[in-house]
Amino acid sequence: MSEKEKIGTYRLVAEPFHVDFSGRLTLGVLGNHLLNCAGFHATERGFGIATLNEENYTWVLSRLAIEMDEMPRQYEEFTVQTWIENVYRLFTDRNFAVTDKDGRRIGYARSVWAMINLSTRKPADLLSLNGGGILDYVCDEPCPIEKPSRVKVTAGEPVATLTARYSDIDVNGHVNSVRYIEHILDLFPLDLYRERRLRRFEMAYVSECYYGDELSFYLDEAGGGEYRAEVRKGAGGEVACRARVMFE
Amino acid sequence: MSEKEKIGTYRLVAEPFHVDFSGRLTLGVLGNHLLNCAGFHATERGFGIATLNEENYTWVLSRLAIEMDEMPRQYEEFTVQTWIENVYRLFTDRNFAVTDKDGRRIGYARSVWAMINLSTRKPADLLSLNGGGILDYVCDEPCPIEKPSRVKVTAGEPVATLTARYSDIDVNGHVNSVRYIEHILDLFPLDLYRERRLRRFEMAYVSECYYGDELSFYLDEAGGGEYRAEVRKGAGGEVACRARVMFE
Repeated sequence: MSEKEKIGTYRLVAEPFHVDFSGRLTLGVLGNHLLNCAGFHATERGFGIATLNEENYTWVLSRLAIEMDEMPRQYEEFTVQTWIENVYRLFTDRNFAVTDKDGRRIGYARSVWAMINLSTRKPADLLSLNGGGILDYVCDEPCPIEKPSRVKVTAGEPVATLTARYSDIDVNGHVNSVRYIEHILDLFPLDLYRERRLRRFEMAYVSECYYGDELSFYLDEAGGGEYRAEVRKGAGGEVACRARVMFE
Repeated sequence: MSEKEKIGTYRLVAEPFHVDFSGRLTLGVLGNHLLNCAGFHATERGFGIATLNEENYTWVLSRLAIEMDEMPRQYEEFTVQTWIENVYRLFTDRNFAVTDKDGRRIGYARSVWAMINLSTRKPADLLSLNGGGILDYVCDEPCPIEKPSRVKVTAGEPVATLTARYSDIDVNGHVNSVRYIEHILDLFPLDLYRERRLRRFEMAYVSECYYGDELSFYLDEAGGGEYRAEVRKGAGGEVACRARVMFE
């Protein structure tokens, strides 16, 4: 199979309600697009969620790291490309590249996924998926950004709390992956976005939250524009996700 | 000009992170699509925001009413059509139809827009826009839903408050029109969405809110699945918008 067949390419546009005060696409919306493109790519190659669901399996997003030199401007077209970098027994690495309207690469992303059995919620063996067919799509396209790191948050008191509402909940009944990103970005004052630029965002998804859960947000400032955030279910409760947010 | 040239037709798909717990497109996302399609339609016909901005004018959304027999399901394609019903001196009525993947009309929407001068913020005369050229696009396509009504809210105490954050703010520095819809939908418990179906949503946009504004949400239950909501800047402050929300 050619490298080109292994890479999915999707054209998008930065819609007016998807840009922030600066007129640039928000990272939450970009995250949404990346995850959609992952879905398109998998579906077109026979291992999308719909097919997996029939076999009682589904994909679970474990980690996501997005690093952007710049964000598309309102109304600008851009392209997302995605491919599989590695397949291990329990995880697969899927990478992304974002290209601007002039064909210039403006950013990359990395994601890590597991497949679980819908009945047992236990991880499944990816190497046996479609008789190992997923391995045919492994591609050596470069992705010149660091892998997601381990994030540790030490703050003892939450800086914000909110209750998971209707708009937070996805079709699986969980708080949706993109909403966590938006809620974490909302921890920072607008002045920080004015003075610096969000360069990199990493997220590790740890456990699911549900409608009515109280989400507590803990935040460490690591210096140099770097912040680490942790979302817990209730003050001091179970960790839902952890993020590393780097402004430049 | 044929009626067909007057109507803009746009194909869309219900993305996974744009559906709610029931697997149907959320009304906030549909509202976003409608407003985007309005923008495409206007731009293609020479009276889009970019062109107007050059001439120091912009469109302002005054009212929106959406009424749906059903919502597209996750992954389903659907079509939005939009056209201009009326042009008055200070307002224009733009209507929408939503068609499902099988070509069946599943809902309609109505919107009312004003054009303002960006310097004076005063309304401009639409009949003189492009020498009255906008009138050429007036179309008699039917839109069999009621016009937005006047909403009055009597509740004396807010049921919820929130502070406008980074994700709420659009490129104009205002809380974006779609976020108000989402915040209002979040006033209702998930059980209401389980037991009833959101049929109609009306919004009147009254004044702009900004980053850091405290938004207070007032809610009247009118019976029969109807609710009326008002968003004010701070408790008892200036009205930002009013909505009528009808579940069936």
